[in-house]
Amino acid sequence: MRLSRSFFVTLRDRPADAEVESHALLAKAGYIQKLAAGIYIYGPLMQRVLQKISQIVREEMNRAGAQEILMPAVQPKEIWVESGRWDRYVKDGILFHFQDRKDAEVCLGPTHEEVVTTFVKKTVTSYRQLPLNLYQIQTKFRDEIRPRFGLMRGREFTMKDAYSFDADAEGLDRSYQAMYDAYCRIFERCGLNYTVVEADPGAIGGSGSQEFMVNAATGEDAILLCEKCRYAANVEKATSVLPPAPDPAGGKQLPLEKHKTPNVRSVQELMTFFKGYPANRMAKTILYKAVSKEKEEAVAVLIRGDLEINEVKVANALDCHALQLADDGLVRKATGAETGFAGPIGLKGARLLADESVRELRNLLCGGNETDVHYLNANHGRDFPTPEFKDLRKAHGGETCPHCKDAPLQETRGIEVGHIFKLGTKYSKAMNATFTAADSSSQPFVMGCYGIGVSRIAAAAIEQNHDKNGLIWPEPIAPYPAVIVQVNAKEETQKKVAEQLYEGLQKAGVEVLYDDRDLSPGVKFKDADLIGLPWQVTVGRDAKDGVVELKERRTGKVQKISATDYLSRSRMERKEG
Amino acid sequence: MRLSRSFFVTLRDRPADAEVESHALLAKAGYIQKLAAGIYIYGPLMQRVLQKISQIVREEMNRAGAQEILMPAVQPKEIWVESGRWDRYVKDGILFHFQDRKDAEVCLGPTHEEVVTTFVKKTVTSYRQLPLNLYQIQTKFRDEIRPRFGLMRGREFTMKDAYSFDADAEGLDRSYQAMYDAYCRIFERCGLNYTVVEADPGAIGGSGSQEFMVNAATGEDAILLCEKCRYAANVEKATSVLPPAPDPAGGKQLPLEKHKTPNVRSVQELMTFFKGYPANRMAKTILYKAVSKEKEEAVAVLIRGDLEINEVKVANALDCHALQLADDGLVRKATGAETGFAGPIGLKGARLLADESVRELRNLLCGGNETDVHYLNANHGRDFPTPEFKDLRKAHGGETCPHCKDAPLQETRGIEVGHIFKLGTKYSKAMNATFTAADSSSQPFVMGCYGIGVSRIAAAAIEQNHDKNGLIWPEPIAPYPAVIVQVNAKEETQKKVAEQLYEGLQKAGVEVLYDDRDLSPGVKFKDADLIGLPWQVTVGRDAKDGVVELKERRTGKVQKISATDYLSRSRMERKEG
Repeated sequence: MRLSRSFFVTLRDRPADAEVESHALLAKAGYIQKLAAGIYIYGPLMQRVLQKISQIVREEMNRAGAQEILMPAVQPKEIWVESGRWDRYVKDGILFHFQDRKDAEVCLGPTHEEVVTTFVKKTVTSYRQLPLNLYQIQTKFRDEIRPRFGLMRGREFTMKDAYSFDADAEGLDRSYQAMYDAYCRIFERCGLNYTVVEADPGAIGGSGSQEFMVNAATGEDAILLCEKCRYAANVEKATSVLPPAPDPAGGKQLPLEKHKTPNVRSVQELMTFFKGYPANRMAKTILYKAVSKEKEEAVAVLIRGDLEINEVKVANALDCHALQLADDGLVRKATGAETGFAGPIGLKGARLLADESVRELRNLLCGGNETDVHYLNANHGRDFPTPEFKDLRKAHGGETCPHCKDAPLQETRGIEVGHIFKLGTKYSKAMNATFTAADSSSQPFVMGCYGIGVSRIAAAAIEQNHDKNGLIWPEPIAPYPAVIVQVNAKEETQKKVAEQLYEGLQKAGVEVLYDDRDLSPGVKFKDADLIGLPWQVTVGRDAKDGVVELKERRTGKVQKISATDYLSRSRMERKEG
Repeated sequence: MRLSRSFFVTLRDRPADAEVESHALLAKAGYIQKLAAGIYIYGPLMQRVLQKISQIVREEMNRAGAQEILMPAVQPKEIWVESGRWDRYVKDGILFHFQDRKDAEVCLGPTHEEVVTTFVKKTVTSYRQLPLNLYQIQTKFRDEIRPRFGLMRGREFTMKDAYSFDADAEGLDRSYQAMYDAYCRIFERCGLNYTVVEADPGAIGGSGSQEFMVNAATGEDAILLCEKCRYAANVEKATSVLPPAPDPAGGKQLPLEKHKTPNVRSVQELMTFFKGYPANRMAKTILYKAVSKEKEEAVAVLIRGDLEINEVKVANALDCHALQLADDGLVRKATGAETGFAGPIGLKGARLLADESVRELRNLLCGGNETDVHYLNANHGRDFPTPEFKDLRKAHGGETCPHCKDAPLQETRGIEVGHIFKLGTKYSKAMNATFTAADSSSQPFVMGCYGIGVSRIAAAAIEQNHDKNGLIWPEPIAPYPAVIVQVNAKEETQKKVAEQLYEGLQKAGVEVLYDDRDLSPGVKFKDADLIGLPWQVTVGRDAKDGVVELKERRTGKVQKISATDYLSRSRMERKEG
């Protein structure tokens, strides 16, 4: 493509709302233009990147035996009510929904479990038609409360979503593994540096899930990983070996003591008040309001004083839609005291959960459910009912790996670009999607779902690959492999060599960008760096000898090469590619 | 693709709501499944057809110098208000619109003039950056009052829309011509039999437009065409040579006569009452209510008694959003009489328009604006004010071609698959989208817009190509060029030959369907006909001699050919293709 004839405009300034480099640079280099919050127009270069990524995704999905379909963005409310997700998604505000001209309620799909289950339910009747994996590359809509980071968290974006249907759990395991393998190939082929982590399935549901994270310091997600055994998990899901706590009484239960603690509330204040009493022998009691489809309930969560609650784990343990810290009114009602003095003893009308860290804890210091009062030497089973123990703890970097138990976890950050889920029968049961099994019984499909953020891959690639001069595309997803820069647009020899090279590459099926604009060399070199194609072929002073300069964008390394050699090398690569 | 492993389900019955064959057959053959009114899921075969069509469109658009971009479906209200289309589209009910979580009003784009103009306005500042043609292949949304005909008139569908930007009218002419040529190549390459017709620009606006119609008896649009000079036009736009009317008085104006005509209203009744007085010497007066952005007005339209009003032309002449027949109240107010006696003499408070057929008409018979009264020998300029004359007549088959004036127009039907428009400065002026011209003045972009119904092409192709046994795809857009039918799934020699053929074709890059299912030959042949791939390669009894049967789906012609020959022939075609 000749730049002189192409729609190519760079911005002088970084957009004011750009918080991350991918957003700033893609806008500055003219790849994207904002139309509204979280809604972008993709220019010709961006569209080429999207197509390169889509093609890689498509090839690997097909290779894995998945079949491409296309499902609609507009979906009727009924199927979302059937699956049980309507209320939750509407309450979350994430769902664009509205009425059509006949007053039928519809939504724009943020995901397609309901549609694909409806599709398969109407067409697949026998186990003989299984397994089945259907995917699409399609536009998704999410009314994000805070759209940000350019293409990273938009309200309209391109996703590849796939859905597998199997007859049983073993089948799902195979389908899931095939997608895991395909995803690894996809992200490798895209030239991304990524980590697969254990993840929380969240609102999608199901029994297990993993995320594919592009490693980037600016990533929205925190990851804990073990360099020794390669255990890796999203912090929302991560565990670690419980940091030990001393037990000076050697397991003996000491008599309960009630202490007046005026205005002493926090762990820090208690440590001072009780003269160096360690946090890891206290229990914090945090009160929540948990909202689920059926009910709202008050929940008290106990955790060791030196540790932190992971609210995603609490919400999962309660299977609730929303989890909020209790307000002062609810605290007073459940504890009879001001906020800051909640404890497990004599708690009224609140369900009691405790993190596993509390299970072995003896003689603990905890709130007294009375303003300005704490108890010392409290023991569960004796002084208060044995709570429901669960893993509710937030794991941190530096703690010991839960898998190999032999190395500390490292904390890094990543950008989620893929997410695979074992859904099991969550949707098929709710939507009554069944098939006739080999034994003639009627069984719900065992499902998996598998997503890739196609537009997000582009942004993530840039977070991982850029410098102060601009973008640096990994070659497989670059809009073009190279740009030919003719230094002086008016110099005849340069023009001849550049034209021959461009035409020769075109003929060989190698599409490159050709900067034939009548602009200063400085502007052209700056633009070439900004748009970030992997190779820059400069046709300048040496053109008279048929020689061009080949610069690698990433390293800045320059080599001189004859134009003919470059052309035949490109032809060769094209044939092999 | 092996059918045994693919998602392939045919229906026993025609869907109850299928009014046209493309809808019935695509649903029956498992290409599409309805999710809601006008909203369809595309199965794997349909998705392949879509991709084949998209690829042809893309190649020809790129060849014509257009550049692919991607614009969002969700669009802010503001830009639609700026262009002046919001109210009209909302009133029409065609626009899906709603509020996001921050109460901002947004819509789903039925078309993208506003977005692309916003995009270009922010980036193109100089005539040096022109001409420019940007296109996308993207999902469109229209809340049709009566979605029907399957993919033909859906509420969500795939379109290619392109927008050209030029510095002046000559530039637009060149851009428009380039698109005209590209569209011809596209529809030819898709294997469609089509006609280009003059069209009404409708709500899109602008100064001229042409439609590309796939010829089909079931088409929604009526077309008039001249077989002699190839003039062709949509009936909404078509004209013809005015059928002559006698003038017995030889141009002399006779005295006005007032006649009591009790209960005589229609042209037919008047012909009887006035004893053979011919319809082509009467004038009908039809009253309308015309609603435009600025006002509502009553309009009376005069036309010769033997002719018919074309309401699209009336609406265009008035530049109004909506045109409705006047109700009895409005008729009584404007005429002072019951409905059926309206006429041009003494009309109150209604704008008077007349079709060109009335211009030369003398001594006409018309309504008296008094119940049970008509006038004879009325003449404009003498008995009533000279009306605004316009072409407001509906042309009909059999009338003389307006272009060559030498042959009768034929009436046929078609399916609109493409539409190209000269928009001029309608949008750029409204949206203040300007560039600096060569003379340093600020000028609005001169625009064109060009649409192709990508999913509709598939349906139109089937309307044109099917028989009682099923679909017959034109080869360039068929999901696969051929299906290999192994007659007996259990027969070893057949299996070996079929497998070798399938694997050989795969290796040569020719993707075919392979019916390896363990079903009766009857079912397999029936399915092969139904899904309509151009070629069926039957591996049956002659497999032992390495011979297969090659059947052309369209003609049913069968030839025997050695499997080896078929393979090398396909390889060759693939290389040339």
